Amino acid sequence: MNKPADNLHMTRALELAEQGRGYVEPNPMVGCVIVQGGKVAGEGWHQKFGGPHAEIVALAAAGKTAKGAEVYVTLEPCCHQGKTPPCTDALIKAGVTRVVVGCEDPNPQVAGKGISQLREAGIEVELLADFAPARRLIAPFAKLVSTGRPWVIAKWAMTLDGKLATHTGDSQWISGEASRAVVHHVRGLVDGIVVGKGTVVQDDPTLTARPAGARVATRIVLDSLASLSTDSRLVQTLDEAPVMLVAREDAPAQRINALRELGVDVLPISLGDHEEFIDQLLDELGRRQMTNLLVEGGATLLGILFDLGAIDEVHVFVAPKLVGGQTALTPVAGQGLAEMATALELDEIEVNVLDGDVHIHGYVRPR
Amino acid sequence: MNKPADNLHMTRALELAEQGRGYVEPNPMVGCVIVQGGKVAGEGWHQKFGGPHAEIVALAAAGKTAKGAEVYVTLEPCCHQGKTPPCTDALIKAGVTRVVVGCEDPNPQVAGKGISQLREAGIEVELLADFAPARRLIAPFAKLVSTGRPWVIAKWAMTLDGKLATHTGDSQWISGEASRAVVHHVRGLVDGIVVGKGTVVQDDPTLTARPAGARVATRIVLDSLASLSTDSRLVQTLDEAPVMLVAREDAPAQRINALRELGVDVLPISLGDHEEFIDQLLDELGRRQMTNLLVEGGATLLGILFDLGAIDEVHVFVAPKLVGGQTALTPVAGQGLAEMATALELDEIEVNVLDGDVHIHGYVRPR
Repeated sequence: MNKPADNLHMTRALELAEQGRGYVEPNPMVGCVIVQGGKVAGEGWHQKFGGPHAEIVALAAAGKTAKGAEVYVTLEPCCHQGKTPPCTDALIKAGVTRVVVGCEDPNPQVAGKGISQLREAGIEVELLADFAPARRLIAPFAKLVSTGRPWVIAKWAMTLDGKLATHTGDSQWISGEASRAVVHHVRGLVDGIVVGKGTVVQDDPTLTARPAGARVATRIVLDSLASLSTDSRLVQTLDEAPVMLVAREDAPAQRINALRELGVDVLPISLGDHEEFIDQLLDELGRRQMTNLLVEGGATLLGILFDLGAIDEVHVFVAPKLVGGQTALTPVAGQGLAEMATALELDEIEVNVLDGDVHIHGYVRPR
Repeated sequence: MNKPADNLHMTRALELAEQGRGYVEPNPMVGCVIVQGGKVAGEGWHQKFGGPHAEIVALAAAGKTAKGAEVYVTLEPCCHQGKTPPCTDALIKAGVTRVVVGCEDPNPQVAGKGISQLREAGIEVELLADFAPARRLIAPFAKLVSTGRPWVIAKWAMTLDGKLATHTGDSQWISGEASRAVVHHVRGLVDGIVVGKGTVVQDDPTLTARPAGARVATRIVLDSLASLSTDSRLVQTLDEAPVMLVAREDAPAQRINALRELGVDVLPISLGDHEEFIDQLLDELGRRQMTNLLVEGGATLLGILFDLGAIDEVHVFVAPKLVGGQTALTPVAGQGLAEMATALELDEIEVNVLDGDVHIHGYVRPR
């Protein structure tokens, strides 16, 4: 960023963008600040999927003062007609003179074309090519548009001696209420909450966000034989949030039909090993434009995802208690890595203590 | 504490006491502040095993101003002739008028008698019966004098997915240099550093404190068959710190003799199961007046100690990395507890982030 005030205005634009989290997906979060003569003339953010883009909101707020102004936008302005007209046209028409862009749009329909159009119209454009916060903000969107798969957030709670449950399988409760409140908050921001069948049998969870969040996630159960009980809390709360059951295509038709009649969305997956099963699932959820998934376990599912390199972000809650047990489950099973030196590293670690539990959040460093 | 300044002076006395950590054991750490007319007239702490007690040091600093003064001492003054004369006599002789005591001395030779003597001499004594920081300060001493066993500090480093090593057993390195520096610091404060034979075979550790600390710990290896290699780093560094090898009494005499000739202290333990083995060891180390042990693993040893309820304090380092693996070791093996609701809770949790690693320290809540 070339001007001293650039950092200030871009940081504000990021803050604005953040307010769209959970409301805009599968669109990216975007924030925009318009500055005229050193003063903020207008602010905006993309508030809702299908609604106006951040630039349009900010231009409307700035009105005539947008002429000759500087624009700070966290993501490259779009140049294509989507649900709304191109933002590049609006910026050119408003007569802005400089646009600072947080990062390039990874969407192949844009991917630098928005910047080119602005430059061709004589607007000075500065692209912050290595500005990590702007790329972080849109990472789930970038993954979806570039790989066709959702961003995977893994969550687990474990004891201070690394156990997901006692040797008998008992896991209630490891973490405290403050930790569980964080989980409920995250649940309210994602498109899907994924668990293995074992977790449903063990805990009979509801997997809803309480209180409700920005969006209602589909509760997705991996249940190859479609054996989910119609008495389970998941099925009993179908009026609160959808349930998707991911089963093998040769699961008993009677079971599949019974669940479908109650309103469960049964997704049959063609035969294959565990990893192929998950591969197909992630592709399908991407086709459905799910941007963010929260995987809540158990260890087997997290292990398969780990082995596939499919985990992008983690929320871990470490409770200050010990249970011991050689055979007690640890959070991530699977094959695992052979050498500690090749361990998956996490970036941008944040650590918070919540009523004694240690909440550790981070992003998996891409290989 | 009745007077507003009491808290201030007792807190200072605790700070002073802390400076004796590692130097005074098997004595307790003690700090003392003498206050005359609202002003500090003398300070002292027990600096070294065999040296003068805190009260004597503080009285010497106060000189004649001790007459009519108030005394803040973290632990009940002793009333028996040990390596030094009784502190109660010195306080009475100095003519102090009020003594505030942080906690009662758990040593059966004192146990309230010190306070009684002062009161009989007409001194006003206030015992802070429930003052946790003063009891925390002397907890290892209290355990030793009341149970005849050392205080056990367990330490482990694990990945964010609860692994002590990869599925192949590779554990170097989980935590970073800043975390390892904390471990070296703790090593320099304890009497013994205990590891299982597997850890020695796997890592060939030195287990010395680098840089050297307040005391030089004996490195204690549980090695039932006395199979420790004479080429191991432990044996090769006998000039830096003692090595004790704990073996079954029926271990090969030839091995025992070879190790003894090199200077290893071989402790034979009579036959029994794992838990009886550890029970005997802890009793013997207590007889040797070891106050603090640091147990550095592996999982099997930590599991046995856990099952015995022998762990008093933990240092856990959680590294922001993932390795996965259903068969990868977790830090504490053993039988373990069946129900999460009965998990061992930790108190006084402290959390620090050290170059990305999360260091969690706490004390096991007594049952």
